[in-house]
Amino acid sequence: MKRNESNWLGLPGGGELSSSETQGSASEGPVTATDRWIANRLMTLNGSAPVSLALWDGETAYEPDASPVAKVILRDRRALYGLLLSPHFYFGDSYSTGRIEVEGDLVECLKATYRAVEPKTPPGSVKREIRNWLHRPRGTGIESARDNIHHHYDLGNEFYRLWLDDRLVYTCAYYESLDATLEQAQNAKLHHVCRKLQLKPGQEVVEAGCGWGTLALHMARHYGVRVWAFNISSEQIRYAREQARAQGLEDQVEFVEDDYRNIGGQCDAFVSVGMLEHVGLENYEALGAVIRRTLKIGGRGLIHSIGRNRPAPNNPWIERRIFPGSRPPSLSEMMRIFEPYSFSILDVENLRLHYERTCSDWLKRFDQVEDQVEQMYDAAFVRAWRLYLAGSIAAFATGSLQLFQVVFAHAEDNTVPLTRRHVYADT
Amino acid sequence: MKRNESNWLGLPGGGELSSSETQGSASEGPVTATDRWIANRLMTLNGSAPVSLALWDGETAYEPDASPVAKVILRDRRALYGLLLSPHFYFGDSYSTGRIEVEGDLVECLKATYRAVEPKTPPGSVKREIRNWLHRPRGTGIESARDNIHHHYDLGNEFYRLWLDDRLVYTCAYYESLDATLEQAQNAKLHHVCRKLQLKPGQEVVEAGCGWGTLALHMARHYGVRVWAFNISSEQIRYAREQARAQGLEDQVEFVEDDYRNIGGQCDAFVSVGMLEHVGLENYEALGAVIRRTLKIGGRGLIHSIGRNRPAPNNPWIERRIFPGSRPPSLSEMMRIFEPYSFSILDVENLRLHYERTCSDWLKRFDQVEDQVEQMYDAAFVRAWRLYLAGSIAAFATGSLQLFQVVFAHAEDNTVPLTRRHVYADT
Repeated sequence: MKRNESNWLGLPGGGELSSSETQGSASEGPVTATDRWIANRLMTLNGSAPVSLALWDGETAYEPDASPVAKVILRDRRALYGLLLSPHFYFGDSYSTGRIEVEGDLVECLKATYRAVEPKTPPGSVKREIRNWLHRPRGTGIESARDNIHHHYDLGNEFYRLWLDDRLVYTCAYYESLDATLEQAQNAKLHHVCRKLQLKPGQEVVEAGCGWGTLALHMARHYGVRVWAFNISSEQIRYAREQARAQGLEDQVEFVEDDYRNIGGQCDAFVSVGMLEHVGLENYEALGAVIRRTLKIGGRGLIHSIGRNRPAPNNPWIERRIFPGSRPPSLSEMMRIFEPYSFSILDVENLRLHYERTCSDWLKRFDQVEDQVEQMYDAAFVRAWRLYLAGSIAAFATGSLQLFQVVFAHAEDNTVPLTRRHVYADT
Repeated sequence: MKRNESNWLGLPGGGELSSSETQGSASEGPVTATDRWIANRLMTLNGSAPVSLALWDGETAYEPDASPVAKVILRDRRALYGLLLSPHFYFGDSYSTGRIEVEGDLVECLKATYRAVEPKTPPGSVKREIRNWLHRPRGTGIESARDNIHHHYDLGNEFYRLWLDDRLVYTCAYYESLDATLEQAQNAKLHHVCRKLQLKPGQEVVEAGCGWGTLALHMARHYGVRVWAFNISSEQIRYAREQARAQGLEDQVEFVEDDYRNIGGQCDAFVSVGMLEHVGLENYEALGAVIRRTLKIGGRGLIHSIGRNRPAPNNPWIERRIFPGSRPPSLSEMMRIFEPYSFSILDVENLRLHYERTCSDWLKRFDQVEDQVEQMYDAAFVRAWRLYLAGSIAAFATGSLQLFQVVFAHAEDNTVPLTRRHVYADT
């Protein structure tokens, strides 16, 4: 199932710069005064981050007032004009193809940039509206959703096994203390979700978007429930079914290769961890309708999703190259799932700092296996994924992204717990 | 400061039915077939609640299929036509003036009615839109807000002392167990709020809408903070200042008789318990702006408010007679405070069942002092308040109302706690 090797992410022109190109200059012509002026304006227009900027002649074109945390080097004029056209988008593509390099700590460079850029566009401004329209995500209908999910989650289980935790949990972990390992924190997250759902033996659970099946198997093993787990990634479903057999849980857990919109039946708990980012705002009410008909009165629901403090499109490069169709919602946007059906929101928890830490742990592991990843794909793929992971750390660290866990029940359900102490009861 | 005795709540026509009127019939003329048909339609159009309905001739005009939980008696034609015109509004006024009586448990009657009525109007329907427009609340500008608050909170501290807990906390309590008393639960609520805010000695706290000052004094006494507490109810502020002096806390707590829009300075924590219901949706962004300029980076905020599962106006009788200008927001509506300023929502907890229990405790105490209340006001006032408390129990019990506690911080604040375990740590 390997795609065109040089074009794993849909990068333009076969991906990488040739070595003569990376030496730069000749084909570009020398840096002009206009290039230098544009480079300088680019930085000041984008909030004057404490990052210095050099051009393809090696000379610095922008030096911040504060001590720079990193140096960004543009290797050719195309990189410069790309940044002018759409800084978020072309930074990603140019970094992946080597037209942009970063000297110094990539994560710190991105954090500084996020901090500088983030608060500059007030809500409701024309600039923001135009940006939102230009950056509207791809469609998320049933057909498009399959393509979107295939693009990312079907890259190959071998790839994810190289740098995720040993159980392949590809969502925000829960670090009960900062010295917890990734494995401990993912295990704690699985229990945290189950405790919030107050699972009881014999209950029936629907999971929408089950990844490699780890939560479904964990719920079955530790809480004695039956699970129907849905996913449209064929690679993940295949792996999850193997795991169910290997762990002797195939009678308790059924992995269904289907879209969340086709979920039927009735359940005591409805859980979705890390799927909502891919659902698309236009389908939130449809997701609510699925939950409305699926969740029994007295049942509990939990949706775990990357989110925003206020409505904004995803980073356009992430949306195009990494997660097609994705959009992290604000809480008011998430309410489009719940409010049309009068679901009662019981509990919202924000795990933003946990996702910063999770992505840091992933990046550390990714850096250790980059040679293997390059052999599986190519150097542009490695750079793109390093940027994606580093950018995610920066986004969670600076408050550009959030992680919401929302627990809910039907409006008329008076069996909801009086307090949340059960979530924190030591087991 | 007593108002026109017969018109405490702005009830029409001097309030009460005369005793000859309550005997009914003569001035009304006999019940006609049309009256009977209208009474029947009224019940079926409003969801066929399991409540029987009798008219002023004593005959039953509607008998539910299920066993009735109570019997509603309309004492005259005016009551019938009022219900036809605006059931929510005229039920309240007619019950208060004695044109409507309820035989059986008032709370159970209202619960059954809420359950029957609530799900009948789908979101976005024309009927709902018209209802929302007709029931838009009074203005909540600075002048109107003062009138609105005066109407309810300046009824006299003596009145509230008769049936609230001994520290006059007039918001949802927190019952850590169901055998907790009202006093224990209010004390637990005060601590619950303080733990969520993670107050530390020496911090400066702003409280918007401080009631009789109990939370402000509690924070100062138990958490060693300095508090500026704002309120536009002169009766409450007078009482709160007396309490500060009596408790020797006047150096730590300043009670300011002013509107939340005039809050200045900077604080480590911003807390508002039970004020948002009176703020009015149109002022949410202004409230957010106040918090934005007041709360230091690194500070915590908490807003505690009655809410809804989805946008809807307040019960029009409550909005007119009990809490002018009030509107409980849905979570998406609450986000109008936070999202324009990119506040990060850390935690939302729904305490709906706690408010059902709190109102039940209040009603029990109110019933015991109704003779005293009638001497202070009049019989219509007693009936109106009994209906308000019983209706609140029913609304929280049936999921028509929610109680949200929302904890938030500035977007860039990385000092937020990793987990919420501190809220549940035994002290």
